[in-house]
Amino acid sequence: MADTELMALTAIEAAALIADGELTSEAYVGACLDRIAAMDDDVRAFVHLDPDAALMQAQALDERQRDGEPLGALHGVPVAIKDIFDTADYPTECGSPLLKGRRPREDAAAVAQLRAAGAVIIGKTVTTECAYYHPGPTRNPHDLTRTPGGSSSGSAAAVAAEMVPLAIGSQTNGSMIRPAAFCGVYGMKPTHGAISRRGALTLSRALDHVGVFARTIGDVALMLDVLVGHDAGDADTRPVAAPDFLATAVDELPSPPRFAFVGTPFWDKADATTRAAFEELADALGDHCDAVDLPDVFAGAVDDQRVVMAVDMAHNLSGMIARGDESQSSETLRAFLAEGREISAARYLEARDNAVRYRDGIAGILSDYDAIITPATVGVAPVGEATGSPMFCSLWTLAGVPALSLPLLTGEAGLPLGLQLVGAPRDDARLLRTANWLAGRLGE
Amino acid sequence: MADTELMALTAIEAAALIADGELTSEAYVGACLDRIAAMDDDVRAFVHLDPDAALMQAQALDERQRDGEPLGALHGVPVAIKDIFDTADYPTECGSPLLKGRRPREDAAAVAQLRAAGAVIIGKTVTTECAYYHPGPTRNPHDLTRTPGGSSSGSAAAVAAEMVPLAIGSQTNGSMIRPAAFCGVYGMKPTHGAISRRGALTLSRALDHVGVFARTIGDVALMLDVLVGHDAGDADTRPVAAPDFLATAVDELPSPPRFAFVGTPFWDKADATTRAAFEELADALGDHCDAVDLPDVFAGAVDDQRVVMAVDMAHNLSGMIARGDESQSSETLRAFLAEGREISAARYLEARDNAVRYRDGIAGILSDYDAIITPATVGVAPVGEATGSPMFCSLWTLAGVPALSLPLLTGEAGLPLGLQLVGAPRDDARLLRTANWLAGRLGE
Repeated sequence: MADTELMALTAIEAAALIADGELTSEAYVGACLDRIAAMDDDVRAFVHLDPDAALMQAQALDERQRDGEPLGALHGVPVAIKDIFDTADYPTECGSPLLKGRRPREDAAAVAQLRAAGAVIIGKTVTTECAYYHPGPTRNPHDLTRTPGGSSSGSAAAVAAEMVPLAIGSQTNGSMIRPAAFCGVYGMKPTHGAISRRGALTLSRALDHVGVFARTIGDVALMLDVLVGHDAGDADTRPVAAPDFLATAVDELPSPPRFAFVGTPFWDKADATTRAAFEELADALGDHCDAVDLPDVFAGAVDDQRVVMAVDMAHNLSGMIARGDESQSSETLRAFLAEGREISAARYLEARDNAVRYRDGIAGILSDYDAIITPATVGVAPVGEATGSPMFCSLWTLAGVPALSLPLLTGEAGLPLGLQLVGAPRDDARLLRTANWLAGRLGE
Repeated sequence: MADTELMALTAIEAAALIADGELTSEAYVGACLDRIAAMDDDVRAFVHLDPDAALMQAQALDERQRDGEPLGALHGVPVAIKDIFDTADYPTECGSPLLKGRRPREDAAAVAQLRAAGAVIIGKTVTTECAYYHPGPTRNPHDLTRTPGGSSSGSAAAVAAEMVPLAIGSQTNGSMIRPAAFCGVYGMKPTHGAISRRGALTLSRALDHVGVFARTIGDVALMLDVLVGHDAGDADTRPVAAPDFLATAVDELPSPPRFAFVGTPFWDKADATTRAAFEELADALGDHCDAVDLPDVFAGAVDDQRVVMAVDMAHNLSGMIARGDESQSSETLRAFLAEGREISAARYLEARDNAVRYRDGIAGILSDYDAIITPATVGVAPVGEATGSPMFCSLWTLAGVPALSLPLLTGEAGLPLGLQLVGAPRDDARLLRTANWLAGRLGE
């Protein structure tokens, strides 16, 4: 199989070929490494990459397969890891000069779960500084003059550029949905607490989510099957059985889906092309889609998210940033931490309470609808504007509800425009099934 | 059986007599009501009491027993309820003029559990204003010129005065341990989250504990058997099986117990008689007891507890207090809420983090010892000083570890002096077993 054919495989297809003995992990990972070598001088998705070590992982997995050992769901498949997740075999620097050369002793929980499922941890991808706004070097594969979005910049770009089929990232505001939308891939942050954050950089316990990037809904579901679960090391995960995401995602719907088209209180911040694309989409869905207005109180969500994020980041990062000099952190980050330090506990707890109200309000809408359709971003990936606005992500992140960006629309300059689907809390599997119907309908 | 003999019964004894048909709930509750009628003009423990309604509950329980229905562990036994727990049949006013005449529609979770176990909810007991410091009318049964302690003033006094064998209260700082110590009864706040707080006034999710008062360790254990458990309505309770508290409490120790005598960084705030009593106790325990110093960092616990309590109370109560005029709340309470509103989120989160460090530090000590021995209060119940200092409670409350005050010592003027035993988190049953050994040793 030619390298270009290999790179077009979904993770599910590649895993099946490997399991059937028609492809080795070594050959597949080798093709990925070739692709990275050819493209990453331009895209700059990876910050730590050791081709020899990646090939050794692949060879070891091939050998285990030849020895007849049982195979995990991701056996032999390479996955790229945002550089805020600890890895035992690669440095983990979180995009900060202050953590230059930092080598954790243990894998983060999500990385360990991927390895346990047979994945090859191919390398670490660029994150913005401490997963906040100050951008890293990554460029958008669709247009190298544009941002890939952030903070999970490298993971989204690597999947978009077909360097790897799968990657993990994280979202505290818009760091999964926005780069997925700008890069034209599927990106999902499941319900808050669905995937353990143990061993990942903590910005905010209340807001941090682990998420996955892939090029199909099936591959997103496969990743959730591997990653979702309880972990005593992350108190927000839950000791309940996870559904079979992949089986549910590709299942027939029991009845035609109903979508709530929610423009949000930030609708007029979206550019004209984006608004037009969504209005056209709502029309095309006809009886499947109703326009639903959020109560006015939801307009406070962007400010509430900012309050929680600023306070929690100030709490979690101030000490580290203070240990360095000003050349080792951005003015952007320092100003935000200073903002967080000035906020009163009363305002913080009010914002936390509001988060619960938003979540309950969203759950209320989703008792009548299968999913909310809403923009992922204000428009396509911008030029020269850091990583773009997270305006259309803050509410759903603060509420902790599952959100998925689908690369099904086209915006200005023919660039990808993200369609964001939002589901009810802990209804991640059903959201994937609804997304799969929508992707089929819109002719994925 | 004469009323005085009935009132001297433990709850376990009374429940056994009722179960065996040798005593009716009606006769037992009637004796309690007589005792209340005789004493409560002086002690002023009850704020809502309806003797006819209490007797009707007792009669209905007797009838169910005659009908051969299965009996709960507290069948026919009266329990007094601090007036911050919602009750469907009594007003719930939380000691605040602002809630005068408030009638909840549903029982609080703890009240419902007591009823399900067959208890007679005999009446509501005096709480300080909103379970904070401004005192209610209750007097100490040992000396009517002295405070019973607070905030669970009426519950502790009612058990001490043998009006009822059992009562429930709550602790956010020292509101169980201090009144238990001042009134000379057993008072326990089990591990944070052990008993559901649904339907009780919320001061602070992080600090609020439900607790129980009784006159023996066995009766404390019996109450925990009824009350400890998971409740989806209180997110801090845990979906794990509870041990058999009563069986464990009276069990033999597998080996001689080891106590850590912890003076705490506040030792010099205890009065001379108290310090002497504890030094004598430590000597008497000989090889069973080592003096253990807490690291200096623990000195911050009183301030950290105050920060969390002030912020959380400001968050939870400011709206209610603001709806009234100044005649409807105390200056003490208003000043504390104002203090809470001024505290930064950074300081609040630091205090919350410190709580985890204290808890871990205490757990570390308790990997080498069965329990910590420490004063419950700075001395005996004072005269004319509101409800006394919670200095010796703040650390254990903030850390969320189980604490039990035992009425085994005597202080100034021959008044009760509380011996506080502290256990490892979630080790409530073992703490009771250790306490039972100590009570036997000190000749309960």
